[in-house]
Amino acid sequence: MKIDRRRLEQTIEELSRLGETANGGLTRLALSDDDRRARDRVVEWMRTASLAVRVDRMGNIFGERAGTAPLPSVMMGSHLDSVPTGGRYDGQLGVLCALEAIRTLDDHRVRTRHPVTLVVFTNEEGARFQPAELASGVMAGKIPLEDAYNARDKDGVRLVDELERIGYLGPEPCAARPLRAYLELHIEQGPLLEEAGCSVGVVEGIVAISWSRVRIHGTQDHAGPTPMRTRHDALVAAADIVAGVRRMAKEIIGGDMVGTVGNLTVSPNIVNAIPGTVTLSIDVRDPSDATLDRALPMIERVVQDACEREGVRWELQHYWRVPYTPFDPLVVDTIERAARTAGARSRRLRSGAGHDAQYMATLGPAGMVFVPSRGGRSHCEEEFTPLDDIEYGANTLLLAAAELARGE
Amino acid sequence: MKIDRRRLEQTIEELSRLGETANGGLTRLALSDDDRRARDRVVEWMRTASLAVRVDRMGNIFGERAGTAPLPSVMMGSHLDSVPTGGRYDGQLGVLCALEAIRTLDDHRVRTRHPVTLVVFTNEEGARFQPAELASGVMAGKIPLEDAYNARDKDGVRLVDELERIGYLGPEPCAARPLRAYLELHIEQGPLLEEAGCSVGVVEGIVAISWSRVRIHGTQDHAGPTPMRTRHDALVAAADIVAGVRRMAKEIIGGDMVGTVGNLTVSPNIVNAIPGTVTLSIDVRDPSDATLDRALPMIERVVQDACEREGVRWELQHYWRVPYTPFDPLVVDTIERAARTAGARSRRLRSGAGHDAQYMATLGPAGMVFVPSRGGRSHCEEEFTPLDDIEYGANTLLLAAAELARGE
Repeated sequence: MKIDRRRLEQTIEELSRLGETANGGLTRLALSDDDRRARDRVVEWMRTASLAVRVDRMGNIFGERAGTAPLPSVMMGSHLDSVPTGGRYDGQLGVLCALEAIRTLDDHRVRTRHPVTLVVFTNEEGARFQPAELASGVMAGKIPLEDAYNARDKDGVRLVDELERIGYLGPEPCAARPLRAYLELHIEQGPLLEEAGCSVGVVEGIVAISWSRVRIHGTQDHAGPTPMRTRHDALVAAADIVAGVRRMAKEIIGGDMVGTVGNLTVSPNIVNAIPGTVTLSIDVRDPSDATLDRALPMIERVVQDACEREGVRWELQHYWRVPYTPFDPLVVDTIERAARTAGARSRRLRSGAGHDAQYMATLGPAGMVFVPSRGGRSHCEEEFTPLDDIEYGANTLLLAAAELARGE
Repeated sequence: MKIDRRRLEQTIEELSRLGETANGGLTRLALSDDDRRARDRVVEWMRTASLAVRVDRMGNIFGERAGTAPLPSVMMGSHLDSVPTGGRYDGQLGVLCALEAIRTLDDHRVRTRHPVTLVVFTNEEGARFQPAELASGVMAGKIPLEDAYNARDKDGVRLVDELERIGYLGPEPCAARPLRAYLELHIEQGPLLEEAGCSVGVVEGIVAISWSRVRIHGTQDHAGPTPMRTRHDALVAAADIVAGVRRMAKEIIGGDMVGTVGNLTVSPNIVNAIPGTVTLSIDVRDPSDATLDRALPMIERVVQDACEREGVRWELQHYWRVPYTPFDPLVVDTIERAARTAGARSRRLRSGAGHDAQYMATLGPAGMVFVPSRGGRSHCEEEFTPLDDIEYGANTLLLAAAELARGE
């Protein structure tokens, strides 16, 4: 049993037009008009494949292919939202490979004991509403529904109002569902598979992640007549923090740790005013929870030292933490066997990125299939995965899902 | 002859309501609706004082009080636009003290041989449209009218379209006018007058100013799975530049030099993407043109080193330069005498901020009257000048203008 490569390619091409950027990437922010259009298209495809479509209160979409017995589902899916000027693989590839797997089961009239359900999660990226993986977080009971509803984008627009506006504020409770297994295909977003010449990554777990937020209060003043000796420049302190986070991740802790200041906003942000306020984000990740525990006090020290040197006030908040998530050993083994049956060169690895699979792993046995990212690049328009690898990945997903849905 | 302190105070109070912020500052960006309202109000006051009002093609407003002979004008004025969350003294105080001086001439039925003209310049701050002092620059023939018209704000809106929208695209040519003298009262925006216990600053000249722009092209990528070893982070390079500019101004060159990165914008600016692009501004100022000449190659070195260390591409442009502007010695002496007659403690100093007087000095004899800024602070809501000092400053302006308008 093999997926239809041409059909999958065409489906990817078609969906990639919704939110396409001039350079062939995607800007499809969660709950934007382009996200609505992409959701509508996928729902249409679900209906064409005779899936029973349901939408929950967080806008998560479920398309169920019935099983022969009243058993928990094998769920497969990912997300349709992208970062600004992101690529056409992150997220939607997992949705479309899962759709293709279900279409292939139909082609071969395969009956499974367990239902097989295609799922689309809302606001995975955290680019528009924070934190990331917001809707699977609510589903897993880790984020209160009210908090998610009240999340606001940078223009102050509430998530719940956007859900309603685009017609995806569904009636179903957003809560744990009986789960035989959760499978998610995703691009690796790192260089390891390409470096090893593998088409498929068998993911053993997801690194621990911590997000922090710093707000620095300096003294806004005129850039001309204010002598250097009297300045308290919020951006000078912020620059010191950016350098400190880099040093900590690369030199002091090292190993697999990564640390990034991705968001930094200056106020009033004009040429001739000394910056009065800067807010910035700090994202640190490590496979080991203990190492991350060690990093947080170091960040506090970096922030304190930088701000004291410049004589500015600051607030630091560690506002999101996800522990290391190991995937279910039996699901991991099933994926590895499926890759072998599909004829794919594969290797085991850990995910450096967070995924909805992280929260789903708290609800039942979960696992992920990775496909390579050229140059390790993602969250950018240049994001690319060769079709050969996508085909190997989709076949691996299909075979693993079929095996898990068949049994017990 | 003395100005009416109460009337001046009330006029300042009234105008400060247009664009007022919650904390008693001003956000009155050039050619915004609040700028239009402030202009309309001042024009109304000009008309009440029987001034002949003219508007030129850059939206500069001239209100002329006739002299007894067909001679060049003594011009006085400043600007009505503010930076975002700026204060209520920068700019409008110079306009309103000049208005009060003219009202006082009327009160005392003083006839002058030269006309006395109140002027309001467009877009002095450079906060909305760049560069700063745009309209006096056009008037002085240093900036082509076409370039000024095509200046765009951060939303891409053209200056000329905004001039038209708010009704201040006037018919008069924006060009040199016969000028007996130009006088501008302004807040010091630095700590020197307050430190010396003076009410009035007699300004000898304006420091040389250079504005540069850096655009850094890193590799946008996912903040999770991208190992530290493969990163090219535009913000890490930018942070290095911020630190380098600070070091150059404070330690390497020192003296009176100031250096500021006031504007810094990150793209895509989200928590979990390695910044792909950063743009930033560098503002450096020094009383000596030679020192500024020495600083620019140092900036180039700072930028090159930072970008090469991080392996990112960059573009650096020094796009605006104003040489040291000495004011006319006779005008400076006249202001100093006027301060003495007004009973004000005064000192001579240089301006660290650019002003329209800089361009006006290329058209005729010019000078400035400074009043103190509490804590040296400006371009912020906390900007404050005591009314006693304002009164001394306004009387100095009045007496200097009267003397210059009387003679020859």
